[in-house]
Amino acid sequence: MTKTCAVFGLGSMGFGIGESLLRAGHTVYGYDPAVQQVAKLVALGAKQATIDSALPNVDIAVIVVLNASQLESVLIGDSGLTRIMRRDSCVIACPTIAPNFARKMESECLNHGIHYLDAPISGGSARASSGQLSVMASGTDSAFNAAKPALDAMAETVFELGTSAGNGSAMKAVNQLLAGVHIAAMAEAMTFGIGQGIDAAELIRVISQCAGTSWMFENRAPHVVDGDYTPHSSVDIWPKDLGIVLEIAHEAKFSAPMTATALQLFLAASGSGLGEEDDAAVAKVYARNGGIELP
Amino acid sequence: MTKTCAVFGLGSMGFGIGESLLRAGHTVYGYDPAVQQVAKLVALGAKQATIDSALPNVDIAVIVVLNASQLESVLIGDSGLTRIMRRDSCVIACPTIAPNFARKMESECLNHGIHYLDAPISGGSARASSGQLSVMASGTDSAFNAAKPALDAMAETVFELGTSAGNGSAMKAVNQLLAGVHIAAMAEAMTFGIGQGIDAAELIRVISQCAGTSWMFENRAPHVVDGDYTPHSSVDIWPKDLGIVLEIAHEAKFSAPMTATALQLFLAASGSGLGEEDDAAVAKVYARNGGIELP
Repeated sequence: MTKTCAVFGLGSMGFGIGESLLRAGHTVYGYDPAVQQVAKLVALGAKQATIDSALPNVDIAVIVVLNASQLESVLIGDSGLTRIMRRDSCVIACPTIAPNFARKMESECLNHGIHYLDAPISGGSARASSGQLSVMASGTDSAFNAAKPALDAMAETVFELGTSAGNGSAMKAVNQLLAGVHIAAMAEAMTFGIGQGIDAAELIRVISQCAGTSWMFENRAPHVVDGDYTPHSSVDIWPKDLGIVLEIAHEAKFSAPMTATALQLFLAASGSGLGEEDDAAVAKVYARNGGIELP
Repeated sequence: MTKTCAVFGLGSMGFGIGESLLRAGHTVYGYDPAVQQVAKLVALGAKQATIDSALPNVDIAVIVVLNASQLESVLIGDSGLTRIMRRDSCVIACPTIAPNFARKMESECLNHGIHYLDAPISGGSARASSGQLSVMASGTDSAFNAAKPALDAMAETVFELGTSAGNGSAMKAVNQLLAGVHIAAMAEAMTFGIGQGIDAAELIRVISQCAGTSWMFENRAPHVVDGDYTPHSSVDIWPKDLGIVLEIAHEAKFSAPMTATALQLFLAASGSGLGEEDDAAVAKVYARNGGIELP
């Protein structure tokens, strides 16, 4: 059953979601301040219309903006979607945000008769393009039902985490906490090992078979070995995402020293000009501090 | 080809190695200050004799003591193995030690015509018993050849990491760095998620399929969910092993903030009376600090 969908935010993730929705046969509108991204999606078959004219007919709006304040400005206020979209339409909110903020956005949408799915995504841009994202979702049964045609197109795995907004965002925060800490740990371990005279490729071969391995180690350590910092996921994502984790933790009076330490390392990477490189470039901070030469 | 072997240190790892050597048909002597451990191994078929009478006939001595100073006292000095063992016999040194210290011990052994294999082990006591350890080994070709009959009995995987002592210990340090950091991260993430209202078992189900997963997360988080802190690997291993990592790092002027932070958490766990519990009990420090109830 094809639907009319709108995607807000056509960065690498949002653009890929737009592609996946088009491939599934849905009618798609794309919105982004970068007009060339909109044009690229139109070239692939998306329709073009102003928000005011298109959105009253949209069944599902997928919001793939960067953060909570962008999400709020898309949804709320005189020109927000909650004023324009019809009753029983659906918002799928993908940014990484605090669970309390997700609950607030859900409540705003429900006040206008619009379903809200708290739906942070992970998997990277390649999986966004191929419709194989993981979605950590929570919301009412009606929200899941309304969102299903878009979820089917964009996701390989949808974790159903409860009947109201918040749990999806909380689970995403837990995942980002671990992912960020593990990237920093990978950088610390690789540079330490190289400094001790072990061959970089040998480190990957051995550690990936031992108890010290992690998904992030196996995914990112090869970037260090190859000296390839093409940004599949950039350093600058982590001050943002670990910052959100620490905000949530702060509000809950939860002390999170591993996350706090990892955040400092990504800040040092960003502050020394590596913000737009692949997040494995945090290894360069360690290498510089330790007088170690990376491959 | 059966050999005459001696195992020094019959804790959970050393005892298991003794069992594996016996099962492979080797003649085995076991030594430990805890006489009941020696008696248990004798009951399984080990021989009993004083060090002075047995060691001149031993082909391979496997040293499974706790740390560098214990290793040194077994090997060096008037009553040390280097004075008692015959030329062309072999020492397999398993404790986690600094690479420089491993090189020093190798040199002492070679001065007495004894082969030395730098051979830190990992895998836990069950794998020690079943002969399925992983060994991170470096040493001369002669050392590898002389050690082979024992390695075949005790290990499933032997990583060959170079032709002199040091690399084995360095690789073990890298693995312990990652493993310790990942356990602390697991504890931080699990308690954070539980505090945010997510079901503990659900955290494992989802995270183990996501980019935030690690070998340690999948192995240790179930202990938190089950509230089972039976010490498969105890909290007190980590102040020791991460302490060694930081000593090596300090000597190399390598700043290791993730390791340093993890060490503080294991110290807090040990200092609050959890030292002999399973290392997943570091989650109790987080839970207490955050006012969170664990399963």
